[in-house]
Amino acid sequence: MSAMTDPTSEPLFDPEDPVFVAHEGGKLAVHATKELRDRRDLALLYTPGVADVCLAIAADPTLAQRYTTRRNTVAVITDGTAVLGLGDIGPLAAMPVMEGKAVLFKHFADVDAVPVCLESGTTDELVEAIIRMAPTYGGINLEDISAPRCFEIERRLKEALDIPVMHDDQHGTAIVSLAALINAATVVGKRMEDLRVVVAGAGAAGVACTNILLRAGIGDVVVTDSRGVITPEREDLNDVKRRLAATTNPRRMSGTLAQALVGADVFLGVSGGTVPEKDIARMAGDAIVFALANPNPEVHPEVAHRHAAVVATGRSDYPNQINNVLAFPGIFRGALDAGAKAITETMKIAAAHTIAGLVEHPSAGQIIPSVFDDRVAPAVAAAVARHV
Amino acid sequence: MSAMTDPTSEPLFDPEDPVFVAHEGGKLAVHATKELRDRRDLALLYTPGVADVCLAIAADPTLAQRYTTRRNTVAVITDGTAVLGLGDIGPLAAMPVMEGKAVLFKHFADVDAVPVCLESGTTDELVEAIIRMAPTYGGINLEDISAPRCFEIERRLKEALDIPVMHDDQHGTAIVSLAALINAATVVGKRMEDLRVVVAGAGAAGVACTNILLRAGIGDVVVTDSRGVITPEREDLNDVKRRLAATTNPRRMSGTLAQALVGADVFLGVSGGTVPEKDIARMAGDAIVFALANPNPEVHPEVAHRHAAVVATGRSDYPNQINNVLAFPGIFRGALDAGAKAITETMKIAAAHTIAGLVEHPSAGQIIPSVFDDRVAPAVAAAVARHV
Repeated sequence: MSAMTDPTSEPLFDPEDPVFVAHEGGKLAVHATKELRDRRDLALLYTPGVADVCLAIAADPTLAQRYTTRRNTVAVITDGTAVLGLGDIGPLAAMPVMEGKAVLFKHFADVDAVPVCLESGTTDELVEAIIRMAPTYGGINLEDISAPRCFEIERRLKEALDIPVMHDDQHGTAIVSLAALINAATVVGKRMEDLRVVVAGAGAAGVACTNILLRAGIGDVVVTDSRGVITPEREDLNDVKRRLAATTNPRRMSGTLAQALVGADVFLGVSGGTVPEKDIARMAGDAIVFALANPNPEVHPEVAHRHAAVVATGRSDYPNQINNVLAFPGIFRGALDAGAKAITETMKIAAAHTIAGLVEHPSAGQIIPSVFDDRVAPAVAAAVARHV
Repeated sequence: MSAMTDPTSEPLFDPEDPVFVAHEGGKLAVHATKELRDRRDLALLYTPGVADVCLAIAADPTLAQRYTTRRNTVAVITDGTAVLGLGDIGPLAAMPVMEGKAVLFKHFADVDAVPVCLESGTTDELVEAIIRMAPTYGGINLEDISAPRCFEIERRLKEALDIPVMHDDQHGTAIVSLAALINAATVVGKRMEDLRVVVAGAGAAGVACTNILLRAGIGDVVVTDSRGVITPEREDLNDVKRRLAATTNPRRMSGTLAQALVGADVFLGVSGGTVPEKDIARMAGDAIVFALANPNPEVHPEVAHRHAAVVATGRSDYPNQINNVLAFPGIFRGALDAGAKAITETMKIAAAHTIAGLVEHPSAGQIIPSVFDDRVAPAVAAAVARHV
């Protein structure tokens, strides 16, 4: 498992490595849920019987929900342009991640998820392809599509389709981060609305985290990208960052991430960059550090702990793992069960509060439920369904 | 089951009907083939372990065959424009048929098939969408796409993709019809090359049947459409029919289907029309009648039997059912196993001979194996794999 324990090493193809053994043959299979034993079964499940079901759906499309797999099927769609921390590795190499996601959908929420890996193209081309295949699915989980295209693609699909569409790299991360922050604030005895938050990173996750924090009532959010604090004065901003500049940074500060961190209550890192210990040291007392870059957090959790009261990462080998799997299975489970036509902002906030609420006694060592806490997905599903 | 036994009746939605009971909830589910028990499994099947597999595939795309579901996955793709005998009912109403097909793929050949139902569009738009999603799949079974678009769509996909692509309405029917005809010719003691064949119907199945019969060595094939015999003189022909006019009809006859049947050895009906008993009566002695329209054969098999020596239909309630399921599961099984980049003409002919050969003592009552003969798919798969 050398490649796993040292993720920065050259990729080695070693068929004996447990990772490759675990992936042998792929990670999914399709099963028939109905028995095919004889000619009678064949006549019921296929021709001529199936024609009646087709005609019934043609006459009343809502019956597709009851008589097809659309009822429980979510497409996990990528174009392979922003896979994990690996970047643009293309649709074929993205398959193992999409299959893994489908395994999680099934395990945690009994959702039948299928990978769909698309040759990349223009935003128009991707939107067109996804709209064309949408009748097949009950929901669409967008995954690992590069920013800023991912924002427009998600927005246009939400406008065009009447099934739930969610870009998980944005909203899964945002929901679970908000859940963790709710409990972290409790632990340090600060009110959410009083927090000064610095979000490092203005990609898919950074934008969505910022938006959900604002909607959750945090007034002072400062966002940085590789060139520093995002301000309305900067002339190098794309549309998405310009919108961030308009909605964040109430103290009109400018400068570097290091400057932004001085006196901040919360560092939320979703950048993949690194933050020196001295910058963490200049945060406010009882600081909260979420260093979510994977596999290498922006600041090592042990280093962060020298200065911060609560530390979370994206890693499973440290406490407080911020992992999307706490959100997306339950989100789609609830949306499918309730026949939701979209995943709304209200649902996301409700999901975050639900996840936070499952930690009965938040402490610095536990602000978020375990990934394997099997109460999470049903509770999130119920919260989502309540807000349809 | 009133709607099943009288398929021409108005479609009735009756949730108590066994057909609807059999379709409740859809007919497919997705399963994980690997166990997810704990954090270690999660780290192997998903992050961080999965990154190694992604990188290995990015470096060597052939590894996708070994480490992803592409290995065993076939997309059953339609745009819902020519579903069964129902016509253009759209992608949503086509779902039950595509799911049924996937059930057959799994049952007969352990292929993981997934439905993909596309909003229809121009030929360009459909070809573009399918090429874009192709990295996900190990093969593509096109289904129920209207003619003549289906011919160009299949041809362009075969040119563009290096995975097996087959439009089953064309080639599945053609392969099984040829298999049946090989044995029927034996039963009546006529040589294949001496047969005079009339193919009624120049849609997807008619064109493919004609082409495979010509390749199998039958020199005298006459094709008719709703306006009669297809001849080079006709000015109402599309490209596909013009090609048929150039390759068939060696006696340069013209006229009606009734005229074409006078003295013919074989009637192969894939038209959905009807043929009066008197026209069958004028065929050659020991005539062969394949009346494949479903659910209503062009001529009732009992009526045909008054004049023909061998009769086959598409129905399961009469002897000699010509059913695509004898071909497509084994075809794709063999192609996937052997890593075939295409389904070739040679493979199709080999599949037909293999299916025919499984009937040890052909007779008027049995020219084709039973749909549930479990020797068929493995034998077809082996025949296909031998010709890669």
